[in-house]
Amino acid sequence: MIQTPYLLFLGDAPDALSGKVAQGIKDWRPENCVGQIRMEGCKADIGLADLTLEEAKARGAKTLVIGVANRGGKISQAWKKVLVAALEEGFDLASGLHNLLRDEKDLVAVAEATGQVLHDVRVPEVEYPIATGEKRRGKRVLAVGTDCSVGKMYTALALDAAMRDMGQKSTFRATGQTGILITGDGVPLDAVVADFMAGSIEWLTPDNDPDHWDIIEGQGSLFHVSFSGVSLALVHGGQPDALILCHEPTRSHMRGLPGYKLPSIEAVRDLSLQLAQVANPACRVVGVSINTQHMGEEEATRYCAEVEARLGLPTVDPFRHGAARLAEALVAL
Amino acid sequence: MIQTPYLLFLGDAPDALSGKVAQGIKDWRPENCVGQIRMEGCKADIGLADLTLEEAKARGAKTLVIGVANRGGKISQAWKKVLVAALEEGFDLASGLHNLLRDEKDLVAVAEATGQVLHDVRVPEVEYPIATGEKRRGKRVLAVGTDCSVGKMYTALALDAAMRDMGQKSTFRATGQTGILITGDGVPLDAVVADFMAGSIEWLTPDNDPDHWDIIEGQGSLFHVSFSGVSLALVHGGQPDALILCHEPTRSHMRGLPGYKLPSIEAVRDLSLQLAQVANPACRVVGVSINTQHMGEEEATRYCAEVEARLGLPTVDPFRHGAARLAEALVAL
Repeated sequence: MIQTPYLLFLGDAPDALSGKVAQGIKDWRPENCVGQIRMEGCKADIGLADLTLEEAKARGAKTLVIGVANRGGKISQAWKKVLVAALEEGFDLASGLHNLLRDEKDLVAVAEATGQVLHDVRVPEVEYPIATGEKRRGKRVLAVGTDCSVGKMYTALALDAAMRDMGQKSTFRATGQTGILITGDGVPLDAVVADFMAGSIEWLTPDNDPDHWDIIEGQGSLFHVSFSGVSLALVHGGQPDALILCHEPTRSHMRGLPGYKLPSIEAVRDLSLQLAQVANPACRVVGVSINTQHMGEEEATRYCAEVEARLGLPTVDPFRHGAARLAEALVAL
Repeated sequence: MIQTPYLLFLGDAPDALSGKVAQGIKDWRPENCVGQIRMEGCKADIGLADLTLEEAKARGAKTLVIGVANRGGKISQAWKKVLVAALEEGFDLASGLHNLLRDEKDLVAVAEATGQVLHDVRVPEVEYPIATGEKRRGKRVLAVGTDCSVGKMYTALALDAAMRDMGQKSTFRATGQTGILITGDGVPLDAVVADFMAGSIEWLTPDNDPDHWDIIEGQGSLFHVSFSGVSLALVHGGQPDALILCHEPTRSHMRGLPGYKLPSIEAVRDLSLQLAQVANPACRVVGVSINTQHMGEEEATRYCAEVEARLGLPTVDPFRHGAARLAEALVAL
């Protein structure tokens, strides 16, 4: 568990897009952010107060989160000046980078000397159990996709927010690096050892109040041959009561797999439901989330209406339309 | 890759069953075994010559393989006397135990001093790639099961032997500890990190001659909620041209999951084929392998005939009937 609130480190971000992790944290958990810290030449600005380490500390920040993709996959010496100073100022560090904090000897040495913690959210820090398949109390919904990177995390975060707006008990359950940094907790599923994948998701979504919903971030796709095993571990470990289908309609092929066409939303509905009902026979598909970022307003509205008519399920783009209709479908279940 | 031939270590095995890894190696790769080595009180005997380390070395043995399950999950001091002596005699060591050789400081020190290798086949030693899904040359068949431990490894080994008896080009591809020790090579799939599961199977079954068959050992079951993700990675990473369905008819519930009934063979056929055709639209189900160890001869024969009539597929227990009919079905494809 990463201590909040955060100071968001944007470093020398070459453009706005490279700061998207910081942007995500600010969008979804503004209450966790006291400000941003940027180096000379930084081209990203997520619209928070620019603070020094001292100022952020005075405002209560506990962890400096690396909210920027690094250049060349390396934690640079220029970054390290700030990271070392942050440790010395009493901050923990958190990062989702491939280049692990723990692999940098100087950072490790300073962290030990100052008693601060280095969080590499890409690396599991828990010994997860083997899944038991036992029925758990409380409700769970899982976002499943026709492909990778179609908006499953966004959908789950928007659904969680909509549920809480409606006064429902709801917790977003992160299964990837960005989600873990946003909420401070979760399972980096793609880095979990095969035998423990489903068990890690059972661990993430334990017994809860009967009217509480875990909103589980999906990963990959059952139809994506590189990562389908990860997706199935979510379906069986998550034991969902409800599924939300996620789709991006303009893709010409599966992400990273030029020879593979996307499955239809119906194919994902049928396969996901069949597999989910192995672990929870009561599971239902409750709605569809469409990522219409590459469509105009009119085309997006028409496409959602068409899918809604075809599948008989509430269909929205949570970014354009909000996720209230998906939340209502959950509550109605 | 473990160097052959082997000297099989049976230690102080408390009963015959605890020597089943050694038995498997002897049954399937007798040409890899120069003999067995047993300690005082050993209750297992796989029928090979009892040799001293010196005798085995003189007969060409290169690796001492731990072919016995250890008591209490620990490599005992009594065992270590033999293991250290083996290293000093110039043997490598190979083990599939949870208690890793590399976690024993004395073994590591002696291995370094003598220049011998410690193989823990439970731990991946390769940096596997992410799966690409690209079509590979050569043919592949995968054993899929209604449950864990229904005889997928046995089926694959028997099929590989039958194929070679018929003069076909065939390679058994191990995906678990025992299979790796039997053949000296393979992927310990249950210990691979999630993102690389399918890629590890692509790596294991690369391009080959057009008329060569990889016989891939299956793991888990698509219907077993603890391990289904591992099974799906095999289906998508293996890109099989053919599937063999494996079943044990006397189970009252899924292994380790008291609340879960076994799926029908038909359900496994339909789901496996649908998923396999994502990676290889030409995939076909070619046969059924029944583990009839808990049935009498007559009951076993009747059951196989009944399944054969119901599914219209050659159905055998490879242990009782051999795997020739499954091999013929493969060749006919």
